[in-house]
Amino acid sequence: MTLNASINETHRLQTPQLDVPPRLLMGPGPSNAHPRVLQALGMRQVGHLDPCFIDLMNEVQALLKYVWQTENATTIPVSATGSAAMEATLANTVESGDAVLVGVNGYFGHRLMDMASRYGADVRRIDKPWGQVFSLDELRSGLETHRPKILALVHAETSTGACQPLEGVGDLCCEYDCLLLADTVTSLGGVPLFLDQWGVDMAYSGSQKCLSCPPGISPLTLGARAIEKLNQRSTKVPNWYLDMSMVGKYWGKERTYHHTAPINMIYGLREALRLIAEEGLAERWARHQANAELFWEGLAQLGLDCHVERQYRLPSLTTVSIPEGVDSKAVTQKLLANHNIEIGNGLGELAGKAWRIGLMGFNSRPENVYMLLDAFKQTLSK
Amino acid sequence: MTLNASINETHRLQTPQLDVPPRLLMGPGPSNAHPRVLQALGMRQVGHLDPCFIDLMNEVQALLKYVWQTENATTIPVSATGSAAMEATLANTVESGDAVLVGVNGYFGHRLMDMASRYGADVRRIDKPWGQVFSLDELRSGLETHRPKILALVHAETSTGACQPLEGVGDLCCEYDCLLLADTVTSLGGVPLFLDQWGVDMAYSGSQKCLSCPPGISPLTLGARAIEKLNQRSTKVPNWYLDMSMVGKYWGKERTYHHTAPINMIYGLREALRLIAEEGLAERWARHQANAELFWEGLAQLGLDCHVERQYRLPSLTTVSIPEGVDSKAVTQKLLANHNIEIGNGLGELAGKAWRIGLMGFNSRPENVYMLLDAFKQTLSK
Repeated sequence: MTLNASINETHRLQTPQLDVPPRLLMGPGPSNAHPRVLQALGMRQVGHLDPCFIDLMNEVQALLKYVWQTENATTIPVSATGSAAMEATLANTVESGDAVLVGVNGYFGHRLMDMASRYGADVRRIDKPWGQVFSLDELRSGLETHRPKILALVHAETSTGACQPLEGVGDLCCEYDCLLLADTVTSLGGVPLFLDQWGVDMAYSGSQKCLSCPPGISPLTLGARAIEKLNQRSTKVPNWYLDMSMVGKYWGKERTYHHTAPINMIYGLREALRLIAEEGLAERWARHQANAELFWEGLAQLGLDCHVERQYRLPSLTTVSIPEGVDSKAVTQKLLANHNIEIGNGLGELAGKAWRIGLMGFNSRPENVYMLLDAFKQTLSK
Repeated sequence: MTLNASINETHRLQTPQLDVPPRLLMGPGPSNAHPRVLQALGMRQVGHLDPCFIDLMNEVQALLKYVWQTENATTIPVSATGSAAMEATLANTVESGDAVLVGVNGYFGHRLMDMASRYGADVRRIDKPWGQVFSLDELRSGLETHRPKILALVHAETSTGACQPLEGVGDLCCEYDCLLLADTVTSLGGVPLFLDQWGVDMAYSGSQKCLSCPPGISPLTLGARAIEKLNQRSTKVPNWYLDMSMVGKYWGKERTYHHTAPINMIYGLREALRLIAEEGLAERWARHQANAELFWEGLAQLGLDCHVERQYRLPSLTTVSIPEGVDSKAVTQKLLANHNIEIGNGLGELAGKAWRIGLMGFNSRPENVYMLLDAFKQTLSK
């Protein structure tokens, strides 16, 4: 072999060994991964069709069913971050012209609309102010007006901190012959979820929130009615990577090659799910709730208000109203620079109006609550 | 908070601590990650918009330019496995009705056709037998006949072990006003690549081949002519997750949130690229070539033939013709069971006709060549 051209050395950087500050990640995500998850990530690899890897895949699928409380056979981790699992729900089930009704009460409702439109959906919307949720009557009225094939709701709005109740919504959707799609990115593993009892047909999540695994892999579940809609498509899924008629054969009985699974991220997700099985869902949900309440009490003592009404407040993500006259971004920068604590600025309509503070998974601990409240107190008093 | 329903414990598996056999991965990929890469994966996280993470992003982008030998500003890791980066090239640049000409001489040519068709391309093909490559004259004739907007070629066909020469192809494509798309999944970091000198407009790769990083993140580069085609689209990119008009703003100067980057996979990729910068591209390419030649000599001594003509043989992936009367799958199973060595079975037209053996990145070492040759000798003599 002769090199017919000379090598350009311009971008041959000499960089130091990886090192990053020890941040406490209390924004809207990622949250800090559990140390056992970080350790699992570094395990040596096996092939993506190795018999022992297939055992791990089975375990991950079972444990995802546990945390979502579903019996859906098609319950898998998508080989990408949460937004890809979000897109997978729509890419597989929307056909051109299908009416898709999106409940928009935050940033991620807008994202669902954008995605649905790219798959040719006739996108409809119902709206609530950011931080509020839809009542069953409002949803019924929306279904009555728009007669959609899919109703998409955000169970845990990461941009607002509101938790959309889903009990009874599945029954409504059955009545109107429509599929129920739920964003559970900021609820899975931290906030009560009963997909099957609530009649949710499709849901997705991220790994980097209450599961305490780094981002890069994303849970997806499709129920029988969603799979039926997929099987009845008259055209191929217009997205190769997320085509569940093919991906499902790798995660299903066939174990047919589609793309190379992200092996080490699956190691990490398995460990994250194993930690949840050890702790127990009831205990984990109660822990998230208790630490959130501790935080809310502390905020009140500092004279800070929450943006969302108590009844609909997510334990995993709190939006804190920014007091008059406070430079919100200066506060987040000071928390990072002086305390190594990351919190989130407001997104979309809440930009400059609220901070977003996560107490997710491994990070949902009293000592983190105390540390953050103290850091807030120091920063706001300056 | 009250739980209005009881928790189903069916899928609450009690699983042991993660452990897997110490496999030597000498199939078509994944190859074993370098130990320093596995260590980097487990580094604590920072936020995906943290100032220190942005420094790491800049480093990864520069180092990708080095290994690809390109100055393309849009050179990034896609937050998914290699097939997603493959899809990203087509999703962004194909508009409905565009003629896309695919050189089909292996499995991944078929995949490119499938993907292009999902984006509404008028898919055309030129064919060569699996294991052979296209001459410049054959490519010119294809361009003359089909007048495509994009010519897609597989530089390193992982299904056949053939290396498609690309010198001169870029000039041809300019002459016919068409973009050149190259699959470099099994060549990046192991086989000479000079994207800019060859006039390649778009390329993608995987992390789990010659880069010696686990799968889950995938390099993508788009040159100025590809970006121009993207900018001139009359419709939105019909794939949200891979829409480079948005993803490019996270990796570009704006650093605007699109999706949460797979932080720890980026740590791993950075370390993998750092190892290449330390070794040097010329030295790395020469090492791959030398170890492949050592392997080919050993195969000849065992009386085994390579499927691909010497001149076009990839150093990173060798297809070994299966001798008459040998049960090919029984051999791969014995290598795994008795030697902890994974090699690949033939794919597509080469199923049952060839084994696929990778000597990629960290795994391209003489001791691995000797070990595999010895294991082959033991297994075939039984």
